[in-house]
Amino acid sequence: MYFQKARLIHAELPLLAPFKTSYGELKSKDFYIIELINEEGIHGYGELEAFPLPDYTEETLSSAILIIKEQLLPLLAQRKIRKPEEIQELFSWIQGNEMAKAAVELAVWDAFAKMEKRSLAKMIGATKESIKVGVSIGLQQNVETLLQLVNQYVDQGYERVKLKIAPNKDIQFVEAVRKSFPKLSLMADANSAYNREDFLLLKELDQYDLEMIEQPFGTKDFVDHAWLQKQLKTRICLDENIRSVKDVEQAHSIGSCRAINLKLARVGGMSSALKIAEYCALNEILVWCGGMLEAGVGRAHNIALAARNEFVFPGDISASNRFFAEDIVTPAFELNQGRLKVPTNEGIGVTLDLKVLKKYTKSTEEILLNKGWS
Amino acid sequence: MYFQKARLIHAELPLLAPFKTSYGELKSKDFYIIELINEEGIHGYGELEAFPLPDYTEETLSSAILIIKEQLLPLLAQRKIRKPEEIQELFSWIQGNEMAKAAVELAVWDAFAKMEKRSLAKMIGATKESIKVGVSIGLQQNVETLLQLVNQYVDQGYERVKLKIAPNKDIQFVEAVRKSFPKLSLMADANSAYNREDFLLLKELDQYDLEMIEQPFGTKDFVDHAWLQKQLKTRICLDENIRSVKDVEQAHSIGSCRAINLKLARVGGMSSALKIAEYCALNEILVWCGGMLEAGVGRAHNIALAARNEFVFPGDISASNRFFAEDIVTPAFELNQGRLKVPTNEGIGVTLDLKVLKKYTKSTEEILLNKGWS
Repeated sequence: MYFQKARLIHAELPLLAPFKTSYGELKSKDFYIIELINEEGIHGYGELEAFPLPDYTEETLSSAILIIKEQLLPLLAQRKIRKPEEIQELFSWIQGNEMAKAAVELAVWDAFAKMEKRSLAKMIGATKESIKVGVSIGLQQNVETLLQLVNQYVDQGYERVKLKIAPNKDIQFVEAVRKSFPKLSLMADANSAYNREDFLLLKELDQYDLEMIEQPFGTKDFVDHAWLQKQLKTRICLDENIRSVKDVEQAHSIGSCRAINLKLARVGGMSSALKIAEYCALNEILVWCGGMLEAGVGRAHNIALAARNEFVFPGDISASNRFFAEDIVTPAFELNQGRLKVPTNEGIGVTLDLKVLKKYTKSTEEILLNKGWS
Repeated sequence: MYFQKARLIHAELPLLAPFKTSYGELKSKDFYIIELINEEGIHGYGELEAFPLPDYTEETLSSAILIIKEQLLPLLAQRKIRKPEEIQELFSWIQGNEMAKAAVELAVWDAFAKMEKRSLAKMIGATKESIKVGVSIGLQQNVETLLQLVNQYVDQGYERVKLKIAPNKDIQFVEAVRKSFPKLSLMADANSAYNREDFLLLKELDQYDLEMIEQPFGTKDFVDHAWLQKQLKTRICLDENIRSVKDVEQAHSIGSCRAINLKLARVGGMSSALKIAEYCALNEILVWCGGMLEAGVGRAHNIALAARNEFVFPGDISASNRFFAEDIVTPAFELNQGRLKVPTNEGIGVTLDLKVLKKYTKSTEEILLNKGWS
């Protein structure tokens, strides 16, 4: 397969409600759809999920699209691609830039699945027809608002709830939710807001039977996390510093965590994610699919991944209406008794809703990849 | 001090000879001079040293200048800066992007030193009047060419020689140089070209009395380096994965290395570099100043850092004529019995040679930082 053209569609979907983390607050999802068209006219779609600010990782939406245009698409234009697994190798000399790589690589996976006339889920060996999903709740003003939201999502059928925590919005929030929902699958995400001096507070969280505490310490730390994990009953889960299977091996070898939040965008795409999932299953590390407030294309890729057997724990993959009034794909993803259906149509299994996409599109750029394909 | 204007000068200096590493080959130094002008008309200079390709680290020259324009300068424009140490904190919520941060932060340091009418070296507590320097030699075609180059640089007075090595260009190269120069201070830089399977080869290097082996394994690895360091007599030196003092603490706590190649650009500037130098001195880790084929402005900042007492080992700071026929500063840096003089004039102690700079300038962009300074 040769890719002859790329279309970079810059769109921005308003969020139904601002989403707050220890990093900051988002009111919309600003993203690109990367559309690749091959010599047979097959269209593959990926989503560039980097945030506008370099606060979660070092990439921004504008620096990542620059890397796609200046580095990744020129590499893709140079040769025939026999299988999607080649893309990770093609980009391997490029340090970092995982979100840029993932957006392009996932569009290639979609195109190949369509060429083979099967769903992306089937193509990557996923067998589930639907997946259990969890919901992630941003930092709230007070306990009352938080309890209302948890109640609302539990009523909607979400089986697992993740609370964002931060200094002064931790113990009392977790305690209140645990008291109101004694049996709920509950976890806390700290987004690197703590350090070793907060040990006693983190130790206190041990009593609330949490599934895990996500990234309590620095975004590049392995050693302090290992020190903490030895002293906690609760699993520590790593997110920001896991960019490849090598990072998982490093974390596992020194005992930094017992769970991994696996985001396709953060690890550079599907090939890298599959290696991480397989490593985790082999080494009894709980792996689950994280979220980046994706629009429908990114969400579809996540669901295909989470339909694999390694994924037994509900991911941060909510229905489209968790964040957006309208989604850019049809059919939108809808919760059904706490589960999302795994698309069975070809490729990512959903199609772009051109009317909605057009409404939220800010710009479209077409790039001819290779003029000289014989 | 308020910064009212920034000038981004994009220039490209041809190298006297191509410089080859396991990453690739450079024929010129493409860079930006970041010029900041404050309310008193003081000009501070920094150099954006990221390479055009994301092969050494994830930043490229074009992605880094984008981050400077979209993220860093707008932050700088927001407030009065009382001391240069504030910049690291001002940018601290931004993940990574160290080279972009360093270019702006170092321009602020230069401006403050000029305001205080003293040299940057004096301002950061450096006491040496001149510094011993080493030279880094790229990968060569064959042993003969390498020996000629080593001979040439030793004759010029360089006391320490670093050889770039890569698979099939390692043992026989190091052996030949050690045989011809039994007493020479010699080291090897692998730029992440090896892995655990190469243990026996790396162990063989132990016999050549090298000062150190730099970054044999992956650019984000701590654990495999610790495994190797336990089995080698020769120091392991880390480069690519050291971006902050936290990374040094992490490496030190698990024994990944006994030396650190400290590059101002790679660690986000002077404040970060000083913390690393102090930590290394306290913990008996050999710290030395690395190089990025800097032009004169970057070279001046490096010399100020390397004039500090923690730096006893010759850095990769060569004379201007090692790489360039002409340099963009006056006076150019000239070797004198293996030493470079530490500038004593105000700030970085050298001035832009506008004639030479103009000759190699590709574009200049002026950005007003704040229209409303009272």
